[in-house]
Amino acid sequence: MAFGWIDDQAEARRRAGLVRTLRPRPADSALLDLASNDYLGLAHHPEVIEGAAGAARTWGGGSTGSRLVTGTTELHTELERELAAFCGVEAALVFSSGYAANLAAVTTLGPHGSLIVSDAGNHASLIDGCRLARGERQVVGHADPEAVRKALTTHAGEAIVVSDTVFSVDGDAAPLTALAEACREHGAGLVVDDAHGLGVLGEGGRGAPYAAGLAGAADVVVTATLSKSLGSQGGVVLGPARVIDHLVNAARTFIFDTGLAPAAAGAALAALRLLVREPERAARAREVAAELHARLTAAGLEAVRPDAAVVSVRAPSPEQAVRWAADCRTAGLAVGCFRPPSVPDGISRLRLTARADLSGAEIERAVRVIGETRP
Amino acid sequence: MAFGWIDDQAEARRRAGLVRTLRPRPADSALLDLASNDYLGLAHHPEVIEGAAGAARTWGGGSTGSRLVTGTTELHTELERELAAFCGVEAALVFSSGYAANLAAVTTLGPHGSLIVSDAGNHASLIDGCRLARGERQVVGHADPEAVRKALTTHAGEAIVVSDTVFSVDGDAAPLTALAEACREHGAGLVVDDAHGLGVLGEGGRGAPYAAGLAGAADVVVTATLSKSLGSQGGVVLGPARVIDHLVNAARTFIFDTGLAPAAAGAALAALRLLVREPERAARAREVAAELHARLTAAGLEAVRPDAAVVSVRAPSPEQAVRWAADCRTAGLAVGCFRPPSVPDGISRLRLTARADLSGAEIERAVRVIGETRP
Repeated sequence: MAFGWIDDQAEARRRAGLVRTLRPRPADSALLDLASNDYLGLAHHPEVIEGAAGAARTWGGGSTGSRLVTGTTELHTELERELAAFCGVEAALVFSSGYAANLAAVTTLGPHGSLIVSDAGNHASLIDGCRLARGERQVVGHADPEAVRKALTTHAGEAIVVSDTVFSVDGDAAPLTALAEACREHGAGLVVDDAHGLGVLGEGGRGAPYAAGLAGAADVVVTATLSKSLGSQGGVVLGPARVIDHLVNAARTFIFDTGLAPAAAGAALAALRLLVREPERAARAREVAAELHARLTAAGLEAVRPDAAVVSVRAPSPEQAVRWAADCRTAGLAVGCFRPPSVPDGISRLRLTARADLSGAEIERAVRVIGETRP
Repeated sequence: MAFGWIDDQAEARRRAGLVRTLRPRPADSALLDLASNDYLGLAHHPEVIEGAAGAARTWGGGSTGSRLVTGTTELHTELERELAAFCGVEAALVFSSGYAANLAAVTTLGPHGSLIVSDAGNHASLIDGCRLARGERQVVGHADPEAVRKALTTHAGEAIVVSDTVFSVDGDAAPLTALAEACREHGAGLVVDDAHGLGVLGEGGRGAPYAAGLAGAADVVVTATLSKSLGSQGGVVLGPARVIDHLVNAARTFIFDTGLAPAAAGAALAALRLLVREPERAARAREVAAELHARLTAAGLEAVRPDAAVVSVRAPSPEQAVRWAADCRTAGLAVGCFRPPSVPDGISRLRLTARADLSGAEIERAVRVIGETRP
């Protein structure tokens, strides 16, 4: 029978303790949130909410078409202009998700005959971009510029190097400066996903490429999301105007997708303007992460030193990670739980996010709960 | 230099007259809109706008995380329950776009060792789903159940057949009943994208699979979008509960993407409830399409008989299609213009959409402008 094999896979997942279940949250959850990617605490900011509501009132519930037909409003253009200015690049192009933005960037910049060098720890959307692209893909070791250099020497034609700037699982940063050097030695382009860097790293949250002095470079393309620090939904590709023009003409997830909903564009624009006005939010997110890490380490927990706002704590096994996260929840604390197959190295962990609006008392409480519930 | 090849491609596009340019629209556009996919005219309905605004107020600007971490709100679950009930299926799963929903359905239901039979006229997102899936892909002629049957006989193991229900370019319908028969003869699953059927076809707009008596079948999976008839943004996969559970556990564009923004979920839910209350909107969209086609044909234009709400009019060349659409715009009418490489057969056309809320006078005016500006 059609789809009969699904039951076998479901049974195998049950036996392995790897079943995933949706857990809808109520609007008035009393949990202390260290699980979301709302790094700056802006998703519930009144100005961001009004950004969404006002845009819906002015522009409607949806953008009504693909970006090249009716799906580009003046609001989209305004958002793209301000994102580009903030990040210090020539141009920006907004997508319905960061996933779509990554598929677009990698597929259009890694054409037939080119080489795509991809970090082994890259996000699923970059990996899928590599698989969809017509170029030849070489996966190299995690955060290893020498391996990138070696891969680039194997290829004579066009090449790009693809990496997250901050890796989602452990919150560690890519060696951007060294990657850019390796690229420049070989005339290769650098394509980096700043999903976890925008709003957190660089002056006033301008992102990891900005912090590394790569913003506005002719050979660097940055992707990012509107759904983390900017508290909304959507993705963006930032870079030289010629690259953005190329995406408008060639990126399938741009051309054949409905434009981002006005409410999402409005919320992201409001959050961006807030961040421009209150640049200290970015530094505060980093401080919270550092404090979380210091306290967890002092409590004897195995936490990875954070390069941005993600703090990862190792768990002994997938089952114990799930139980640990559940015990935290019972004690009033929401934490992320990453386990196979979502972790490239097979190591399960709790994943904590340091929101800029966490108070000292909340950080203390979070660390206490995590310590008391440890397996 | 990195990305140097982009300039050559841009130059080639210029020479071929195929440059695409974004044209931001103002909020108070005076154009008569026959270009959007807002088939039921709901994107600007006060209840849909309030659905978006109210959801942003209650739930914030974004869903704050992936669906399995913090990105599932009770609003998402409510929307999924009502979509499933409306379409007559066991379960539904909402995505950030229809593109993401299609990637999810095809990649998870076309695993390694399986055969994926794909219609040559399928939407880009289904094609990309086929390319990302681990199964073996066979592309068959457009709307050809015999070709599907033949492809299925070449393969002994699991198989799925993938098709749009209504094809985006010409608005023609797939032979769903014959496709389902071919699938059942071979124990294959049927995966259909009802992006242009939901809200337009079937009783009260329940969609093409519902109209074909396939809703709720154990071997049929339906994808759809929230961004056309439902006036919002997002995508959905509808089908047996075991298939939906499988997607929750295995679909990369579900697991590794931020959940749909609350405002988009709220707008889609409001539109769905409107459609339940006012089922005549679906029939009206079909009537407008039929009237549009009849009048265009009477005016001597080469229009394809519409099976849903899309009416396609052939143009002699890409250049003339672009000029025709531009002349319509100058005369106050917005129409879509499809040309290579977005059209599989290389034929350029004007693409008109029949909104349920177009008046007789507006239809008359649209046909007059299209006739007067014909190349």
